[in-house]
Amino acid sequence: VALKLNLPRTIEYSEGRVRLINQLLLPDRLEYIETKDWRRVAEAIKKMEIRGAPAIGVAAAMALALAARSLSPMPLEKALSYMRDVAEKVKSTRPTAVNLFWAVDRVMAAISKAGNVEELVELAEKEAIKIWREDEECNRRIGEIGERLIGDGDTVMTICNAGSLATSYYGTATAPIYKAVEKGKKVRVIALETRPYLQGARLTAWELSRAGIEVYVITDNQMGIVAQRENVSLIIVGADRITRTGYVANKIGTYPLSLVAKDLGIPFYVAAPTSTIDLKAEGPEDFEIERRPSEELLYIYGKRIAPEGVEAIYYAFDITPPKLISGIITEKGIAYPPFPKSIPRIVEGED
Amino acid sequence: VALKLNLPRTIEYSEGRVRLINQLLLPDRLEYIETKDWRRVAEAIKKMEIRGAPAIGVAAAMALALAARSLSPMPLEKALSYMRDVAEKVKSTRPTAVNLFWAVDRVMAAISKAGNVEELVELAEKEAIKIWREDEECNRRIGEIGERLIGDGDTVMTICNAGSLATSYYGTATAPIYKAVEKGKKVRVIALETRPYLQGARLTAWELSRAGIEVYVITDNQMGIVAQRENVSLIIVGADRITRTGYVANKIGTYPLSLVAKDLGIPFYVAAPTSTIDLKAEGPEDFEIERRPSEELLYIYGKRIAPEGVEAIYYAFDITPPKLISGIITEKGIAYPPFPKSIPRIVEGED
Repeated sequence: VALKLNLPRTIEYSEGRVRLINQLLLPDRLEYIETKDWRRVAEAIKKMEIRGAPAIGVAAAMALALAARSLSPMPLEKALSYMRDVAEKVKSTRPTAVNLFWAVDRVMAAISKAGNVEELVELAEKEAIKIWREDEECNRRIGEIGERLIGDGDTVMTICNAGSLATSYYGTATAPIYKAVEKGKKVRVIALETRPYLQGARLTAWELSRAGIEVYVITDNQMGIVAQRENVSLIIVGADRITRTGYVANKIGTYPLSLVAKDLGIPFYVAAPTSTIDLKAEGPEDFEIERRPSEELLYIYGKRIAPEGVEAIYYAFDITPPKLISGIITEKGIAYPPFPKSIPRIVEGED
Repeated sequence: VALKLNLPRTIEYSEGRVRLINQLLLPDRLEYIETKDWRRVAEAIKKMEIRGAPAIGVAAAMALALAARSLSPMPLEKALSYMRDVAEKVKSTRPTAVNLFWAVDRVMAAISKAGNVEELVELAEKEAIKIWREDEECNRRIGEIGERLIGDGDTVMTICNAGSLATSYYGTATAPIYKAVEKGKKVRVIALETRPYLQGARLTAWELSRAGIEVYVITDNQMGIVAQRENVSLIIVGADRITRTGYVANKIGTYPLSLVAKDLGIPFYVAAPTSTIDLKAEGPEDFEIERRPSEELLYIYGKRIAPEGVEAIYYAFDITPPKLISGIITEKGIAYPPFPKSIPRIVEGED
């Protein structure tokens, strides 16, 4: 019997109104931001009240739909000029978010076909809803394909939040878990807390427990002993970027976690939409790993953890080599090694 | 040219007075506790103002010396009875600390040979000073032996605080670093912060920077990318317990760190006194891994990191298998694989 998942929706659009979870207040309380004003949605992206690449893309598209809806009767050219201005402002909220640009450009391309302002509004809204639905549908497919890997009573380990909160619904790494639970399987999840921002403890643990799933938090450095002693059946992580040959850039900790999996013989899967795969990128040299300010990890809740004068090193991502990956779960199927063969085939949809 | 190490002493004894660093105030400020009262030393152990197995042992022995010094003229049997009472009280401060029992028992065995109270006082003090000097000498030897592994300009990675602060001086994992610096080598250190208690960020970074050594803090989950991108020459960690065949129990994170080292071809050394080696223990099944309360990692500086209702799993140690260890640096020499041969030989001093 299929169970109804008791999981709040990250972001929704209905009749010119956007409603999104204010993630800055999690895990302490669940509060929504509801608005008809595109500026408020842009602000939510900027302030990180909504985060996660797919969720940001959806929010940006919805912001443009709201902006279009707010247009008073005017000449088409003036309306397009206004929309171009909005697009630039939305893009500037998170200047390194690729999904943000991609979503804004999709809505702008759609409205370029409008013959008048009424059509423009209709096209903007239609495209925003399409982007939203596509994201959810993509994750649902990842979930359906990935849930076959999870057995009843299994324990799954994950890192960071490649969860529903990072997308419009289901998440990527979490989608197989949610789908397995919907199918009536009992699943236990172990979430790495994921320093410095603790997305695992704050967000992944929140959404899973909210959905009624048994979840435990561990410090990142426990990845080895916990995988060894807690009957971990499977590890599923998300991905920020995947190369043609199967190198995966993801949140720091993913690479040592994959080493633990290999050493202990635990299957290690990456779950990500094919849009994450860059067929032009080959090896680890094709990633630029973001380095962030020392302060972001030297202070926890405002308190400095190391002596004054001592600096930190902060790489935000690491790279997992293909030899450590059991498979890559996408909305089009699972790519298995050898990845240089399976990945292009999956992306081109010939699976 | 030998450099003078500008490193404060963790604990000292002089003329019936103990002086120790209050580690609870680190890294914010350096303050000493100075006392002639054994009860204050016992309190410091209990409150963890002093911590680290060897340092606790030294402090306990000094507490007994202070207690003996406080004896007024009385019959020997009454004095011994008083000392037995003190010994029990000192042992009860940290009921799982093996070094604590060992040090107390050594002083008690020494004073059992006294013919009168004056002799008892002398023997207690002598034995306490001996334990203190032996600890420092042992670490100095580990440092001298281990420093040959460190080249000028090297970067060394370590976890937790197997540092000077955990011992009377030099530390174990840090001893080779200090000795290399004393010999004029330039060494850069990367300290894993070591959640949940952040001993790496708070203590290791403090003592190294205090000694004028360039040190950087990283989150534990960065162990992979940092080892890869920061020219790490060598990893040195401490040990809580080592079996005859070379399994090492140490702070959580040590095992994944050793996997990173293996994968990247970075030498991975354990530094520990031979007293850490248990020749009767064989494999990982001979370790009981301490599990601690969930709350200790769910709260950081009083703030809960995960939603209410979500629990944590907290193993305080993990186990590194011998296949991942390049060598074990002891005060008697370095044990290299195969460990079942080299470890007993080192312990029995036939190196």
